[in-house]
Amino acid sequence: MHDISQYQDFFLSYLKNQNITKEPKNLYEPIEYILGLGGKRMRPVLTLMAAEVFDTNYKIALPAAMAVEVFHNFSLVHDDIMDDAPLRRGKETVHEKWNLNTGILSGDAMLILAYQYFEQYEPTVFRDLAKLFSKTALEVCEGQQWDVDFEIRSDVTIPEYLKMIEYKTAVLVAAAMKMGAIVAKTSEKEADLIYNFGLNLGLAFQLQDDYLDAFGDPKTFGKQVGGDIIENKKTYLYLKAMEFSATEKAAELQKLFSERLEDNTDKIEIAKVIFNESGASEATQKAIETYTFKAFETLEKMAINAQKKNILKAFGENLMGRKV
Amino acid sequence: MHDISQYQDFFLSYLKNQNITKEPKNLYEPIEYILGLGGKRMRPVLTLMAAEVFDTNYKIALPAAMAVEVFHNFSLVHDDIMDDAPLRRGKETVHEKWNLNTGILSGDAMLILAYQYFEQYEPTVFRDLAKLFSKTALEVCEGQQWDVDFEIRSDVTIPEYLKMIEYKTAVLVAAAMKMGAIVAKTSEKEADLIYNFGLNLGLAFQLQDDYLDAFGDPKTFGKQVGGDIIENKKTYLYLKAMEFSATEKAAELQKLFSERLEDNTDKIEIAKVIFNESGASEATQKAIETYTFKAFETLEKMAINAQKKNILKAFGENLMGRKV
Repeated sequence: MHDISQYQDFFLSYLKNQNITKEPKNLYEPIEYILGLGGKRMRPVLTLMAAEVFDTNYKIALPAAMAVEVFHNFSLVHDDIMDDAPLRRGKETVHEKWNLNTGILSGDAMLILAYQYFEQYEPTVFRDLAKLFSKTALEVCEGQQWDVDFEIRSDVTIPEYLKMIEYKTAVLVAAAMKMGAIVAKTSEKEADLIYNFGLNLGLAFQLQDDYLDAFGDPKTFGKQVGGDIIENKKTYLYLKAMEFSATEKAAELQKLFSERLEDNTDKIEIAKVIFNESGASEATQKAIETYTFKAFETLEKMAINAQKKNILKAFGENLMGRKV
Repeated sequence: MHDISQYQDFFLSYLKNQNITKEPKNLYEPIEYILGLGGKRMRPVLTLMAAEVFDTNYKIALPAAMAVEVFHNFSLVHDDIMDDAPLRRGKETVHEKWNLNTGILSGDAMLILAYQYFEQYEPTVFRDLAKLFSKTALEVCEGQQWDVDFEIRSDVTIPEYLKMIEYKTAVLVAAAMKMGAIVAKTSEKEADLIYNFGLNLGLAFQLQDDYLDAFGDPKTFGKQVGGDIIENKKTYLYLKAMEFSATEKAAELQKLFSERLEDNTDKIEIAKVIFNESGASEATQKAIETYTFKAFETLEKMAINAQKKNILKAFGENLMGRKV
């Protein structure tokens, strides 16, 4: 086993050797651009780690890890169009830098490219990877649709919200890990356990993302801080604040989250005060801890040695310890 | 073997039994809508026919045929966004009936659903189908990108144009047939021959589509007649008219195809007169015949009996005999 930064390096050097850009350039350059924007490469790192957890050299898992990263970036490109987001990782989004059509078409090509990376495996492994990938990718689309639907609904419940982020975010983290298990040809039981580890870690990760979207440091968060508030997203923070607030305060928050403004400075400030004073911020941090703990519990059930469990646990702690 | 209308019926009854719409409805209803809009179902019919040409019951090929049709409709949904098309088969396009985001996301889901239909086959057939599908789907994206690129270029050559329509349209017709061959587990040689038959037929089909876009009957064409002229598309008709016209006439046509107008009635009429008088219409009809003939030549090389060759030929003649 290696440490996280080593897996990141292994993946980045594989990524750099891909020579993605070919003709027609207007299709492939945006793909190279978005894949080159950086990020922690959490998902592909998890695929490589999972393969080694099940005693298989990470190199075998590189194409599967690449498929996961390409798919993740596909979803970013199309989501950024839908959210009308100007920035991604502190840089222009694809549809901003090029245009809408390029964003749509380069995204489509990425979804297909992701499947092509599985072709490097033998037929049964190929089939298992592609099946898990299709199931996951469709769930991600469903999660994104719920997310869009929730924007114009005022009666979203916490369980509905959790289901949405499970589909939109957590299943891909889970699948990334299970792909490492598939490549390593481990037992179905172990593969499902590592999927559950990833699922709970993914839920914790998304809840933390919600939290940081409001309270993160603009210098390091990459995305626009307060973006969820501007977009009237009913995040965990918002839903908990609605639950915890007295009628009058809740009405104020609801009204705030029905407005579309030119200048959002005050809106963001007011929302953050309500999140803090209602106890929603604390509840969100508590939920992050709960899901992280659930992930670690699943880890205990696995038939791998203590050293490997500690490496996975360290990854979770590192991920949840992020301040940006 | 059956006749074309029987294969259409077999496919339609399979399609109707799919129960596509589930939660979230806003994701799946547009998919059911576009798949239900009709059309000749040329591509899935070709998959079923190809399977039976190679002595395999069409029923075995139904999931592969469905994958082809779902992918084709995915490309229509996303292309209609990029072309800003209001109508598809005489009905509202998905992004018009719903909105941009729905068009993007439901399209994405369709691309994934297409892959899932291959899961009904054993691992090696699954892998062969999915590999051909990915290669083809990526070529379709590349063809669409060339198409977009060509709109703002004034130096597109006939060979470039033919490459574009090969990728954007013909490869899917070819792949639809080869999928029938894969499902039937025929030899690679036969599978490649039927691919070439489909490729040439697909080229003939697209050139005919270009022709009908200008000269088709608005009552039966489905799409907006003159749409290519309005959008300044450098079709085979336009490129041949430029080639055949004297300097002054060519300059007039080029100017006409650089304008974006509110009312396009005159523009369409003038373009059609130039297409006819320059000999471009005749040259296009000649090219349609040439590619149809090439397809029939490929057919002769195949190791299938005369009756089967005649059925495939009849399909080609029927397709090319369309007046709408």
